[in-house]
Amino acid sequence: MAKVKKQPRPKAETPKGFVDYFGADVVERKAMLDKIAKVYDLYGFEALETSAVETVQALGKFLPDVDRPNEGVFAWQEDNDSDKPGDWLALRYDLTAPLARVFAQHRNDLPTPYRRYAMGPVWRNEKPGPGRFRQFYQCDADTVGTASVAADAEICSMLADTLEAVGIERGDYIVRVNNRKVLNGVMEVAGVLDPSDPVRFADERGIVLRAIDKLDRLGPDGVRALLGEGRKDASGDFTKGAGLSAEQAEIVMGFMGAKGADGAATVARLNDLVTGSALGEEGVNELETISELMAAQGYGPDRIEIDPSVVRGLGYYTGPVFEAELTFEILDEKGRPRQFGSVAGGGRYDDLVKRFTGQAVPATGVSIGVDRLLAALRAKGQTQAAAPGPVVVTVMDRDRMADYQAMVADLRNAGIRAEVYLGNPKNFGNQLKYADKRNSPVAVIEGGEEKERGVVQIKDLILGAKIAQSATHEEWKSQPAQVEVARADLVAEVRRILARDI
Amino acid sequence: MAKVKKQPRPKAETPKGFVDYFGADVVERKAMLDKIAKVYDLYGFEALETSAVETVQALGKFLPDVDRPNEGVFAWQEDNDSDKPGDWLALRYDLTAPLARVFAQHRNDLPTPYRRYAMGPVWRNEKPGPGRFRQFYQCDADTVGTASVAADAEICSMLADTLEAVGIERGDYIVRVNNRKVLNGVMEVAGVLDPSDPVRFADERGIVLRAIDKLDRLGPDGVRALLGEGRKDASGDFTKGAGLSAEQAEIVMGFMGAKGADGAATVARLNDLVTGSALGEEGVNELETISELMAAQGYGPDRIEIDPSVVRGLGYYTGPVFEAELTFEILDEKGRPRQFGSVAGGGRYDDLVKRFTGQAVPATGVSIGVDRLLAALRAKGQTQAAAPGPVVVTVMDRDRMADYQAMVADLRNAGIRAEVYLGNPKNFGNQLKYADKRNSPVAVIEGGEEKERGVVQIKDLILGAKIAQSATHEEWKSQPAQVEVARADLVAEVRRILARDI
Repeated sequence: MAKVKKQPRPKAETPKGFVDYFGADVVERKAMLDKIAKVYDLYGFEALETSAVETVQALGKFLPDVDRPNEGVFAWQEDNDSDKPGDWLALRYDLTAPLARVFAQHRNDLPTPYRRYAMGPVWRNEKPGPGRFRQFYQCDADTVGTASVAADAEICSMLADTLEAVGIERGDYIVRVNNRKVLNGVMEVAGVLDPSDPVRFADERGIVLRAIDKLDRLGPDGVRALLGEGRKDASGDFTKGAGLSAEQAEIVMGFMGAKGADGAATVARLNDLVTGSALGEEGVNELETISELMAAQGYGPDRIEIDPSVVRGLGYYTGPVFEAELTFEILDEKGRPRQFGSVAGGGRYDDLVKRFTGQAVPATGVSIGVDRLLAALRAKGQTQAAAPGPVVVTVMDRDRMADYQAMVADLRNAGIRAEVYLGNPKNFGNQLKYADKRNSPVAVIEGGEEKERGVVQIKDLILGAKIAQSATHEEWKSQPAQVEVARADLVAEVRRILARDI
Repeated sequence: MAKVKKQPRPKAETPKGFVDYFGADVVERKAMLDKIAKVYDLYGFEALETSAVETVQALGKFLPDVDRPNEGVFAWQEDNDSDKPGDWLALRYDLTAPLARVFAQHRNDLPTPYRRYAMGPVWRNEKPGPGRFRQFYQCDADTVGTASVAADAEICSMLADTLEAVGIERGDYIVRVNNRKVLNGVMEVAGVLDPSDPVRFADERGIVLRAIDKLDRLGPDGVRALLGEGRKDASGDFTKGAGLSAEQAEIVMGFMGAKGADGAATVARLNDLVTGSALGEEGVNELETISELMAAQGYGPDRIEIDPSVVRGLGYYTGPVFEAELTFEILDEKGRPRQFGSVAGGGRYDDLVKRFTGQAVPATGVSIGVDRLLAALRAKGQTQAAAPGPVVVTVMDRDRMADYQAMVADLRNAGIRAEVYLGNPKNFGNQLKYADKRNSPVAVIEGGEEKERGVVQIKDLILGAKIAQSATHEEWKSQPAQVEVARADLVAEVRRILARDI
């Protein structure tokens, strides 16, 4: 007999940073995404599903972490038959880069403006950490091909509607809106950055943006340090700052704190800050228009407000930026109350399609952090209660499998989730343990003696669990946890129990 | 001013073999998968969503094309901080290999038997061709941890229910069942292959299996050639055969043609063929049991039948194998009628989990070819008619955007899909062209004069299209394609038109 070479056993593990989702986790996320899709559809957005794989050159390098511009994606080189090296391919890292590619590719066939939504996994080649996964869901809606701020306003009202549709109550969230043009205008007026050197300008503006974006985490003093020379963190690591003077930094800080008692007050303050900058005035006008459009549709400051401290980390935004924040408190891992925080963000990006075509194509959109929003719904008890498991028809006599299969066929034909126990039937206790693990509401039992008499035993597992838990059985006395009924009444009796208990 | 280095423009293209899915394509597939999930759920199966990325060693090499065992997957090596080389990761090529990994990893927490379903994309690094994509959907259901053929029978009846649930009528499909043990038994009895040399046995058995699997495409003579010395195809390429003698090949051919007038007749013939082989007799007994279980649940030979010509290409099946075939005719690309063919297949595979744990874990399951089934539904006109586009509120006066936004807010609050035209409003014809491209049922118009009078114009685009198409306008005379109503009646009038036309 020939010797078969033994392979070492593979490890049964996901790669680091990847996870599996089981049962209710999958169903809950799907239910949430279905609700979101319904709102997007109502607003006239069309579904788009691009492939997970793109060429590296089409994806471009737009990940927020500009310190590592070459990292962040999973990429590999195509094999190629010819002498030419194969293309580099990569998994998409978001849903915006593929949209820009799609619009550039199909722009002659697509309606303009093109409103589309997309839902699906994206991949980041990052160091995995607690709660930081390398595959996660995003859920985006974007409008491509219009410069109208009415498109930005629409995204904001749709975001508010979406949050309410999935179960976040009004008052528990706020959509905050700002405008990059206003910030750029403020910096122009204050002579903070020199726009005549575009490379240096982009670089320093990026440092300023990322500094502002850290206000929540670092507080005003931390942001001030990053706007100036730089900041040493608790571990001793030094982050280079934007190099602004103390006076210039104060102007930026003043901008971030310009939020007034209401939208009109905020707009008035911002108008003061940007006087003399055409770009800045344009930005303030846009914010004012967004405010008016929101008001016309009945979205007051309890849902959508102008807040100059919102900047969003991404470098490619060119106009309005927005963020949805959940304002209710949850307990963090140390039991301290904290606000839940941001679950969605987006803004206007007018240059992503231009990369491909050379022509500017204005666009705006939003991305919902699916896992964070789902976590928020769980924290609020807003996900559906786990559906009950299947009715389990137990096997008393393995030669009569056909009888048991006929029972589940009857139950399923009546729309009742049901299955025959398919493990080794020898130990009846194991069958009931299995039903318990499946969260089954009912177990059906038919031994030889029952079969002869034309009856089945129906065990109410939910009631049984209640009786087992309660100290006195008084309240359950009148309801026996197991009943015998004619085989012909199986479906009716199971239906009666499900209606009572679930 | 510093010079900015110009990058060449990236190409706006998917990588070869990848495609984008737009609008109705996405929605139709989702609707079909939702119906399938409902059936799977009714049978007690739980959802599972594994990550797209697995380690190469966990995936293993089970692609059907054994001629290229190292190819077929998209793989890359992890970066690693240490001196050790990083793990090789790959995109999953099916949903079965990840299930085996999951069960091995979580077997102590999962119920046994573990019934799970999974839906999602898989990736194959193959040469793309017409209709052959490198990313496509699969939709699987498997039961892990039971050797009972009742589990196989359940998969078959569930498959029949699933096809009917998505819209394939009874009579338009057949689930065909066979058993690998019977084929192995036939070969044992006939002395075709020598089981004492397992490597050569596996190799030659593989050639026999793949030869049989090509019966549809090559006909009996082609299969005979592949069972013998080999076969030269039309292009002159030679495929090595299994090296059976003509007499031995006839025994295999006889097995494939053993299907009788009914299940009992087929079982009787197979029993004759395997007499003397314990394995073969076991296989025939299993087929008989499956037949009985099917009959007990009312699944007759109009839905599920035993057919010895079914083998399935995959090498890892160990017992029952099944296939769902659509039996209605469609026209091929040359206009010739042909049967639609296979849309799903599966079988029992008892060794996939053992790779990880060393312990045999019996399992069985089915995989539906999502794109093929969807194509079949389209061919039968069984997909939902494309949903109408949104009501388009046109923009006559761009300073009154708030008025138009208020109209769509009213429509959406009434559950009517609606949007404001957000492109450049200057050319009104472009707005109507846009509505046409979106398949909009209704356009709403409110110019300054209408605004003053408190009315809006409502254009019925569906009726308008009908009038434009009809030679005489007689039948539409009484129904004007445009009506004027009070602004307050906007929602009611749109609803009336939608109810009439859609």
